[in-house]
Amino acid sequence: MGRMLLQAAINYPVETYILENDDNCPAAHLCHHFSKGDIKDFDAVYNFGKNLEAITIEIENVNVEALEKLESEGVKIFPHPSVLKIIKNKILQKQYYNNQEIPTAAFVVTQNILILKEYADFLPAIHKLAEGGYDGRGVTVLTNSDDLETGFDEPAVLEKLVAVDKEISIIVAVNDKGELALYPPVEMVFDKDLNQLDYQICPAGVTEKTLWKLEAFARTVVKNFKSPGIFAVELFVDRHGEVFVNETAPRVHNSGHHTIEAHFSSQFDMLWRIMLGFPMGNTAAILPSVMINITGAESFSGPAVYEGLDDVLKIDHVFVHLYGKRETRPGRKMGHMTILSRDRVDLVHQVHKLKRMLIVKS
Amino acid sequence: MGRMLLQAAINYPVETYILENDDNCPAAHLCHHFSKGDIKDFDAVYNFGKNLEAITIEIENVNVEALEKLESEGVKIFPHPSVLKIIKNKILQKQYYNNQEIPTAAFVVTQNILILKEYADFLPAIHKLAEGGYDGRGVTVLTNSDDLETGFDEPAVLEKLVAVDKEISIIVAVNDKGELALYPPVEMVFDKDLNQLDYQICPAGVTEKTLWKLEAFARTVVKNFKSPGIFAVELFVDRHGEVFVNETAPRVHNSGHHTIEAHFSSQFDMLWRIMLGFPMGNTAAILPSVMINITGAESFSGPAVYEGLDDVLKIDHVFVHLYGKRETRPGRKMGHMTILSRDRVDLVHQVHKLKRMLIVKS
Repeated sequence: MGRMLLQAAINYPVETYILENDDNCPAAHLCHHFSKGDIKDFDAVYNFGKNLEAITIEIENVNVEALEKLESEGVKIFPHPSVLKIIKNKILQKQYYNNQEIPTAAFVVTQNILILKEYADFLPAIHKLAEGGYDGRGVTVLTNSDDLETGFDEPAVLEKLVAVDKEISIIVAVNDKGELALYPPVEMVFDKDLNQLDYQICPAGVTEKTLWKLEAFARTVVKNFKSPGIFAVELFVDRHGEVFVNETAPRVHNSGHHTIEAHFSSQFDMLWRIMLGFPMGNTAAILPSVMINITGAESFSGPAVYEGLDDVLKIDHVFVHLYGKRETRPGRKMGHMTILSRDRVDLVHQVHKLKRMLIVKS
Repeated sequence: MGRMLLQAAINYPVETYILENDDNCPAAHLCHHFSKGDIKDFDAVYNFGKNLEAITIEIENVNVEALEKLESEGVKIFPHPSVLKIIKNKILQKQYYNNQEIPTAAFVVTQNILILKEYADFLPAIHKLAEGGYDGRGVTVLTNSDDLETGFDEPAVLEKLVAVDKEISIIVAVNDKGELALYPPVEMVFDKDLNQLDYQICPAGVTEKTLWKLEAFARTVVKNFKSPGIFAVELFVDRHGEVFVNETAPRVHNSGHHTIEAHFSSQFDMLWRIMLGFPMGNTAAILPSVMINITGAESFSGPAVYEGLDDVLKIDHVFVHLYGKRETRPGRKMGHMTILSRDRVDLVHQVHKLKRMLIVKS
């Protein structure tokens, strides 16, 4: 994320600073000033930020108290720490949707496993740790009462399973004046056998009526945060066409990677415009697009080798982004590919070809 | 150039090294390893390059002898130093076109001003210093015999004036296997009052027959260099539809900047593909485009201020690139803008609006 954000910064006159614990991280060599430090540590974040004009994040897991202090001292934070606090905690996040009367899957709060066990009649449901979950960790599906034993013995949210027809993400940009700009919705297509994201396609294949709901809900979620920044609002459409907000990320997001080539102003370009106080960019698509993550293949760990890369690079209309991570691990995000085409059928055809072509081994 | 080349490198796993005399230059913070040194100095270039795998240039004015030694020791140089030698010297370059039977404006070589004065009947003509000219310096138009006094008293080329109807540039990519890929021709539109580049538009507005000649000549120029790299071949079309090669740059070029957003593989992306041994990219246009240089306004020197930038950034379909140069000077290239549109008339309309909008002051 940092890497692509700095790539977009190159178009503007801006001096960049990065805080990261690994000085060989993919973004370290692309900024003016690199600081080694732990983003979860109050002092590291505070000392890094105290002389800066503006700060943004690429991951929620950052010391919010330090950001709050920096904000109180006049540093601009994108998004506001108050929003980070809500989003970092899944209980607060779900309560926020309820308070704003934004449709979201029904849920109960379970402070520990004893309380969880009282909700056998709430199943099937998803149990999500309130804090510390990330990329599939801290989330488990509870189908029947026997599964309750495997739930979390910490504050968590138990959320009713929605009969999902489509998963959608909408990237929303907000500037300092409170002006909003929405990117067209992206549809996340899952591989039902592997139970993982297969590809994402933009624009999503939804009816006008559903589109209207998706956009209205995404807009409401973000507007009421009263914070500038880039937000990814993830939503479900169920089999009856009902729309629910699933969760929100207060930062540039994986579901916005296609905007680099497929849209006039990418999510990264847009965040710089917002931070630098420039006018908002144009969120319209140049062409329809598909994005595929390039992830480490199962059973390979070690220095990354990109098998089939030459074949992929031979294909017209494909843009390859490798993130420069030295080591691969099973499922690790090592890059992504974006395909542009006027023709949706062609896009889906290309995706299936491409997915088999490139394998990250070691 | 270096800045945009490094921006494109971010998509690939590559470790980057820069040699430049100014450690505050716009590219210094975007590479893994920055070396301060004079690119015209043998030792600086040789010591910089001796442990690298591959080297490219962003300006011709580099120590060729050092590159030759590096090449003899196994470092890959894009383009080959042998080509740099031909292109750096306008006499050798013109003779190369003649030897390859590539149409170019008639010329004579003038070793000094005494010899120049024998060619009064060759006027009107352009007098070009063989070596050391750059960006308008080292070039003078000689209209009548009185002007001969103002010619160069050093080795130079005296070239007959062509009645130019159109100026065209074609970016040509060549890989290690000798495979060529041509970008669509770009038309350079000049402001006749100011006698400077007004904008460039891609694709050029030429007939099929002229296009065929342009591409054939550009292909021949580059093919016979027998060198991998990116080349910009500049050509004239005269009022009778005849095509002449004007000159060639052996590197990424100002006339290829529009390829960043308007083409599937940009000239910068393509150079990385060539240097890394990847397959060639797709040179096709996503949409027609116009590119305008952002140059320092007359009578302003000092820290750059971009007047009207907000207005430009409000316009849809415009991509702004500011190069991060701290100081502006009259005519200094400070950035560029690219506009995409399906409609050629709209492109030209937008250009004229944009050119008045953004002024670089101090």
